[in-house]
Amino acid sequence: MVKYPTGSLAAFQGQVAKKHHKIPTEINFSDRGMTLEQQINESNQYYLEKGIAVVHKKPTPIQIVKVDYPKRSRAVIREAYFRQASTTDYNGVYQGYYLDFEAKETKNKTNFPLKNFHEHQIIHLEQCLAQSGICFAMIGFTSLRRYFALPAGIVITAWKGSNKSSLSLTEIISAAVELKPGFQPTLPYLIAVDKFIKDRKN
Amino acid sequence: MVKYPTGSLAAFQGQVAKKHHKIPTEINFSDRGMTLEQQINESNQYYLEKGIAVVHKKPTPIQIVKVDYPKRSRAVIREAYFRQASTTDYNGVYQGYYLDFEAKETKNKTNFPLKNFHEHQIIHLEQCLAQSGICFAMIGFTSLRRYFALPAGIVITAWKGSNKSSLSLTEIISAAVELKPGFQPTLPYLIAVDKFIKDRKN
Repeated sequence: MVKYPTGSLAAFQGQVAKKHHKIPTEINFSDRGMTLEQQINESNQYYLEKGIAVVHKKPTPIQIVKVDYPKRSRAVIREAYFRQASTTDYNGVYQGYYLDFEAKETKNKTNFPLKNFHEHQIIHLEQCLAQSGICFAMIGFTSLRRYFALPAGIVITAWKGSNKSSLSLTEIISAAVELKPGFQPTLPYLIAVDKFIKDRKN
Repeated sequence: MVKYPTGSLAAFQGQVAKKHHKIPTEINFSDRGMTLEQQINESNQYYLEKGIAVVHKKPTPIQIVKVDYPKRSRAVIREAYFRQASTTDYNGVYQGYYLDFEAKETKNKTNFPLKNFHEHQIIHLEQCLAQSGICFAMIGFTSLRRYFALPAGIVITAWKGSNKSSLSLTEIISAAVELKPGFQPTLPYLIAVDKFIKDRKN
């Protein structure tokens, strides 16, 4: 795994190792030090293998400029650039429902800064909601090891509002479904999806 | 646009120019010489702007090995490789329905070779069908300038069957919805989706 937007893999591994060293013993270890993205990817793999849902992370969009075709070897991209995505990171299908979500982590312990969401993600979530998709944000408070599935409507309204720069943990607790990291799946987010579907029907 | 799997952009442009030169005058020009992919992308843009559906092409998955971070300039990918995709190229949401499809062209005039579909695409279409997605293949007979939306079930059955290596144009005509290229959208494939949804309800 390459953590391209922020630096080398080596630097990132160091960061994780340092974090582990500091973890107080009373904290729940069931997320096994994985990033939120890793937890979601593992959960998607589990859901896929069990025939429960088909959700994939979208590849990072890349603008390819130069490709070498060495003889007797596979093509090598020699010049390329990261492009701006036009969607969220995850989508898929579950029992006929279209799922669409973005995953975001914060080290903050009391609130979630809204600047973590980019305009294209907000617009995409709005567009998918207008087509009756099940849309939400997976919010990870990494320092607290607490994870939430927050309906996209809450994120969109807060992001567009001029009067706040973050959602407090208290607000998120009251509006979201909290997800308890487990073993299989790592992050059982379809429990939240089931609730969103039920809420919609009522 | 870079046509990375088959060669350089220059080579591809030459090919297109040559093709144009040969087009007999009696043929329908409404696809304006676009590839099937270009037609679908334009149609998706139209559907998105009009608030009709949200469908995007997935980026090509890339394994990034080396990234340079030049000072005062954006990151440059210096070594990367094409990875095998695990899904089809297109998915999205339309009136609450999950859409998933793969687009394939052939120059063949009488049948569509099934080897154009890769195993991972067939598996993914099966997985999405099992979750009640609206799944199909967009088949373009480029020499004939005829386009079809073929239900995924037909493709999967034919691909898995050991007794045939292609679907005949006649078989496709009888099982698919033919799409007439137009102006807006370029390829009005939601007409076929509407029919698939109606068929499912009956």
